[in-house]
Amino acid sequence: MAQSKRLSAGITRTNREMADGRTIRYYDTKHQTRTSHDRRPIEEQPGIGELRLDPLVNEWVAMAAHRQGRVFLPPKELCPLCPTTSELLTEIPESDYEVVVFDNRSPSLRPPDADWALPDVAGPDSDLGTAAGKCEVICFTADHGKSFKDLSPDRVHVLLEAWIDRTEELSLEPFIEHIAPFENRGEEIGVTLAHPHGQIYAYSYLPPRVEKMLATANSYKASTGKILFDQILAREIRDHKRIIARNNDWIAYVPYASRYPFEIHIAPLEPVADLTELTQVARDGFAPIALEIMKRLDGVFGIEMAYIAAWHQAPVRVGRDVLRLHWQITSVRRAPGKLKYLAGSESAMGAFIMDMRPEQSAAQLRKVKL
Amino acid sequence: MAQSKRLSAGITRTNREMADGRTIRYYDTKHQTRTSHDRRPIEEQPGIGELRLDPLVNEWVAMAAHRQGRVFLPPKELCPLCPTTSELLTEIPESDYEVVVFDNRSPSLRPPDADWALPDVAGPDSDLGTAAGKCEVICFTADHGKSFKDLSPDRVHVLLEAWIDRTEELSLEPFIEHIAPFENRGEEIGVTLAHPHGQIYAYSYLPPRVEKMLATANSYKASTGKILFDQILAREIRDHKRIIARNNDWIAYVPYASRYPFEIHIAPLEPVADLTELTQVARDGFAPIALEIMKRLDGVFGIEMAYIAAWHQAPVRVGRDVLRLHWQITSVRRAPGKLKYLAGSESAMGAFIMDMRPEQSAAQLRKVKL
Repeated sequence: MAQSKRLSAGITRTNREMADGRTIRYYDTKHQTRTSHDRRPIEEQPGIGELRLDPLVNEWVAMAAHRQGRVFLPPKELCPLCPTTSELLTEIPESDYEVVVFDNRSPSLRPPDADWALPDVAGPDSDLGTAAGKCEVICFTADHGKSFKDLSPDRVHVLLEAWIDRTEELSLEPFIEHIAPFENRGEEIGVTLAHPHGQIYAYSYLPPRVEKMLATANSYKASTGKILFDQILAREIRDHKRIIARNNDWIAYVPYASRYPFEIHIAPLEPVADLTELTQVARDGFAPIALEIMKRLDGVFGIEMAYIAAWHQAPVRVGRDVLRLHWQITSVRRAPGKLKYLAGSESAMGAFIMDMRPEQSAAQLRKVKL
Repeated sequence: MAQSKRLSAGITRTNREMADGRTIRYYDTKHQTRTSHDRRPIEEQPGIGELRLDPLVNEWVAMAAHRQGRVFLPPKELCPLCPTTSELLTEIPESDYEVVVFDNRSPSLRPPDADWALPDVAGPDSDLGTAAGKCEVICFTADHGKSFKDLSPDRVHVLLEAWIDRTEELSLEPFIEHIAPFENRGEEIGVTLAHPHGQIYAYSYLPPRVEKMLATANSYKASTGKILFDQILAREIRDHKRIIARNNDWIAYVPYASRYPFEIHIAPLEPVADLTELTQVARDGFAPIALEIMKRLDGVFGIEMAYIAAWHQAPVRVGRDVLRLHWQITSVRRAPGKLKYLAGSESAMGAFIMDMRPEQSAAQLRKVKL
């Protein structure tokens, strides 16, 4: 049975069950009946993986050994994210779509049993959990050859509403603590499917970087009474020279201490904890700046840049008063034939070395003719 | 003027000044007079870089914009790490060498003025320092085509003594807080010079991962009275199934919660804080296990594995009672044609997903016929 729900901005979400029990959600602006059945044979689902504690740093590592065999750079004719055709039954049973979100077929994290709980983290003898959470795939367009930057403003708006809807719904799950929508783009960073899409990871624990952002923001609040991110944004506005774009509701800048040759943070000027708290006017203002930034990024060297674009949100249950929503885009390309790699200093020690001044990278991004 | 010093194990170190004032150190087992002059024209040295605080996580990022133009994968005939010949003046003025260590020509970190101090880390308004520290290059052999695994046990012994000597000497500098010798190997991880070599980074601040290891070990000690790493090692020995090799003085294992398809930790069985504290018998036992592990790693797929091999030492001034020396080797190759990439979850959130069970990777490493 299809279940439909009216979201804001005239968008309808229709949920359908896939052959193996997973859910696919269609986000449509036009009236659509989404009734096509997933006619593929049912494959067995892998079980839930392990969470193991890395005791050296007290961080969870999710073990997802079943992902080793996942689909790897299939040609366009075999793309599982394209609409279904008479030749190929894909993940999307319909013959066309706007934006869809479906449960990942090879999830790193999956919903646990009802009695699930995360063990207390203590050290080398209290170190095994189950990799609870949820992993979803979000397709930006049915058009295989497009990129985020080629989407229409209307489509980016639907995408944003889909991210908001997923954050809202996943936040209701008792086993979910943090929700991170992100896009990986480019074979250089290991993308295994070329179709324009992103992922949504919903964790049952605070990811280590989120945990550190939270601790830092809490300690800053305790010592100054202020919200760290608001002060950071105020400084970027004061310094001015690293700002790339700005409209009434959003600002995009290369952060003062960026870690990648091209790193861009995009934040709403009216601070919110997560996507669900964005005002209607902020939602409307997102598409233009998002598209401008992505076009600038590809314009720097005139080639498609490999990037990771991740939404940093406040966790579901903690830190909502001290952490702020922002979108972080990082690109490892430092020159047309050269990538930045995380080697000894970054990878083993966590100490980042930047080969380029943030002010220079901001100037290059601003200079791009659109 | 050449300055010679007798180290242990019959090794002599000879220091020479390079044309631009940098120091090169020859580590020799045979009697050698190292008198060749660096006859290259003097190039101007770049100034010291900035350290900028990433206020979101309270971590320093070193800005080394001058490194952007560094030598990138030169052909063998132009390798700057080969001995000098009549055709090419390289970094090493001698016509042959065993192990040499010289100051990096494009260092990310460099010695500061005498009145240098690191600013207190506080937030978005106390965030600028100078990138003090020291970066050195260590060449394992004059033979361009070799790898670490092809070295003789005697040569690995000289290499270990050179690492020890550098740790000892760099520890005396008042501006140095942490010393990390590491090797990056493989173009897949961004190595720009194919000649077998490593680097030594001496930081004026605690690298973020070291800081977290220290905080974790301190809190474990406070709550249990025990040394975290010793308990980790005891568990690996008890579990047994992830051990790859062992001799009287060292043990090599895939850690319980490894983050990379092939990750190996090698630790002395008699725990020490850093390389300088290794007993003579532990120093003698290192070469066999180090060579065995590196051969096993290349044997898994029958190809040269890209890896990062980094020494984790206790910092120079803090944590020496709770942190332990170990050597961490991580390889991103998960299958002959496939690498593990750090994408959205790992890179943006710090949450690692492992595609392979550590027990499976240990079994594959053990199975390699040597």
